[in-house]
Amino acid sequence: MPQEKTLDDLFLDTLKDIYYAEKQIVKTLPKMAKAARSDELRAGFEQHLAETEGHVDRLEQIFEMLDKPARGKTCDAILGIIEEGKSIMEEFKGTSALDAGLVSAAQAVEHYEIARYGTLKTWARQLGMTEAAQLLDATLAEEVATDKKLSQVGIGEVNRKAAA
Amino acid sequence: MPQEKTLDDLFLDTLKDIYYAEKQIVKTLPKMAKAARSDELRAGFEQHLAETEGHVDRLEQIFEMLDKPARGKTCDAILGIIEEGKSIMEEFKGTSALDAGLVSAAQAVEHYEIARYGTLKTWARQLGMTEAAQLLDATLAEEVATDKKLSQVGIGEVNRKAAA
Repeated sequence: MPQEKTLDDLFLDTLKDIYYAEKQIVKTLPKMAKAARSDELRAGFEQHLAETEGHVDRLEQIFEMLDKPARGKTCDAILGIIEEGKSIMEEFKGTSALDAGLVSAAQAVEHYEIARYGTLKTWARQLGMTEAAQLLDATLAEEVATDKKLSQVGIGEVNRKAAA
Repeated sequence: MPQEKTLDDLFLDTLKDIYYAEKQIVKTLPKMAKAARSDELRAGFEQHLAETEGHVDRLEQIFEMLDKPARGKTCDAILGIIEEGKSIMEEFKGTSALDAGLVSAAQAVEHYEIARYGTLKTWARQLGMTEAAQLLDATLAEEVATDKKLSQVGIGEVNRKAAA
């Protein structure tokens, strides 16, 4: 009989899920930066792209700790979130509301990551993987900071323009 | 020429998106409650179902304020998130890690909602829709509280069992 699946399996599954998601985000951020009308928002996306590449590296370190190949697993959630972002970019192209839509799309991405990294950090601790938990926590802190920054950009310039 | 799209259009689009998402969540929570092994987690899902029905009501009040029919718009993001939850329920059925997986799936749902309600609340304020902003904020507070409660359940009993 096959062995019962455990939290270790769930941890590895979710690691593959967010690894796939981060790689999709690396592909998507340059498109969002290119679309942004506000310089502040564009710079924010560019900075977050550099951070996201670091998140991919950290995940690869964790795969290595587990002695597993760094391999993604199709993440329907991130594909759906990115698809919605694309629709907004197309529908609101050239309008004063575009940047507000980009902020909204980016915050949906951030919150997906915040959920996943929060879960993974908790599990890493439960599984006694202290070093992995620290790496996951470092990324989590950067995702939370990015989400807060997006809120500020959204409340500030971007939405004022869109509502004008 | 068609009128340029504005933040009002983006607000209505996003309202339809979360309305569709909430209705999907109403359908999904009973399945998650049924699958849960821990009584605490099951009770939590049941309580959140009642709250979610209230969120649907609040959204309908906002559609009414806008003098628009309450109509959802397919939300690929929530469909992807729910699909991932279903996979976990199938793959980890009958295992000690199932509840940890359910908590993870539910937190991904909560964070999607937190992102959307945060955005909608900000836009409602920008658009001078004070009453709508209050309704959106009330739901946002409940989603944040549910996410925190899920974290506590996850850190507590559920994951300890899964890691045992």
